[in-house]
Amino acid sequence: MNTRTQNTPRKVLLVTAHPESRSLTASLSAFAADHLRAAGHEVRVSDLYAMKWKATVDADDFPDLAGDERLAVMAESGRATEEGRLTADVAAEQEKVRWADAIVFQFPVWWFGPPAILKGWFDRVFTAGFAYGPGLVPYSGAASALPGRRVLLSVTAGARGTAFSDRGIHGSIADVLHPLQHGLFAFTGMEPLDPFAVYGANALPVEHFEEAKLAYAARLDGLFTDEPVPYRLLSGGDYDHDMRLLPGVEDPGTSSLDRHVRARG
Amino acid sequence: MNTRTQNTPRKVLLVTAHPESRSLTASLSAFAADHLRAAGHEVRVSDLYAMKWKATVDADDFPDLAGDERLAVMAESGRATEEGRLTADVAAEQEKVRWADAIVFQFPVWWFGPPAILKGWFDRVFTAGFAYGPGLVPYSGAASALPGRRVLLSVTAGARGTAFSDRGIHGSIADVLHPLQHGLFAFTGMEPLDPFAVYGANALPVEHFEEAKLAYAARLDGLFTDEPVPYRLLSGGDYDHDMRLLPGVEDPGTSSLDRHVRARG
Repeated sequence: MNTRTQNTPRKVLLVTAHPESRSLTASLSAFAADHLRAAGHEVRVSDLYAMKWKATVDADDFPDLAGDERLAVMAESGRATEEGRLTADVAAEQEKVRWADAIVFQFPVWWFGPPAILKGWFDRVFTAGFAYGPGLVPYSGAASALPGRRVLLSVTAGARGTAFSDRGIHGSIADVLHPLQHGLFAFTGMEPLDPFAVYGANALPVEHFEEAKLAYAARLDGLFTDEPVPYRLLSGGDYDHDMRLLPGVEDPGTSSLDRHVRARG
Repeated sequence: MNTRTQNTPRKVLLVTAHPESRSLTASLSAFAADHLRAAGHEVRVSDLYAMKWKATVDADDFPDLAGDERLAVMAESGRATEEGRLTADVAAEQEKVRWADAIVFQFPVWWFGPPAILKGWFDRVFTAGFAYGPGLVPYSGAASALPGRRVLLSVTAGARGTAFSDRGIHGSIADVLHPLQHGLFAFTGMEPLDPFAVYGANALPVEHFEEAKLAYAARLDGLFTDEPVPYRLLSGGDYDHDMRLLPGVEDPGTSSLDRHVRARG
């Protein structure tokens, strides 16, 4: 249980990804940074487009690899992590993640996922030995690689909200973002909150933008106090040794992804 | 209903994404191309790393945008599509997608999604006016943008298969790939098949590779004859005008993503 109040100054990394510096994403990112700083938090920003972040994992990431050596990505990124041979851009982002008590992501949902530049931030930064590996148990909170960090995905989407509601055709926004929320954040021991979303983002009326900022402010105020999504932990006794949910453990009425979430109080 | 047999020669686009030309992904891609050609199909290959595919959507994609003009990505990609001003690399890939009767994707699952270079292929190629837009209805088969094309995701994953099984902690491979299967392929009117996956891919014994090729061959043989995932169509009467599944439509025992799939016969 988190016993600190929202007023205790903490360290927040803001990761943002949009090619236009006058976009809604950029406005929401600036708003978040200002709001968090006004609350006393220390904020660092990774603006991936401004940084010209390299999206693609390739042999240039492993300059010490011999010219004719086969690139096994996971093995090589694990060795480079262990031996301190990661490229400077990746090492700098890992340092920010280690430093942070919370990470806020601000991005547009493109084809039901993060823009490629942000996917490439996950692909390149969350290496073996940093995010998982020997001695680190996935989905196990304190026994995982990056325990305790709060994560808030703040996204914009062109579609209307009903299409991302529980019965919406796109799937709920929680299910659409499950690969990140569960597969990356919960996997590495972080504590993802429910996502925050602004819909109808391609032509957002000014009054809706003002409403969105108010709603976003409330979520930022709860960054360290709101209850994270109660994903089941691998260490919690709900899974067998082959990482399958034990029979009958899930809550009635859950079936596919939602059975990995405990009922809320 | 598809009445052509598997032996009718068809056009298949193979999209593959791995930085190492001696990887398991590369081996499976070469196997797929050979197998499909041996069956009489015409095969074109987009090897994204070999093509040095540009992953990131940015202002360079819209060279006709005035220097001080704000980049609204969806609107600008729609205009560029309509006016034939897309960059040559994007236009070439759209031509391949239009040409294809089926698309096979071969890639490693990295952090529960496609490598950034492939995410960037989706982000950049599936523009407004090409994949969706005025006069095109999402999730509506023949009324959508790219109707009838079969899609097979063939993936490799380091984890064991049980962790991706129906009750597996990662979520079933179908649910993990839902953002692509449903959000992109079904959305645009394509016909995604069940994904094909090779697990334990970081250290695959030779005999498992031989087994994997046999299983893959069977899936490639069924590319035009296997039943696609029976996603509900927006045009099928199951959704309200706000794109929400109507009450009581889903099959008993389904809840989150799986309620958008009809029961199989």
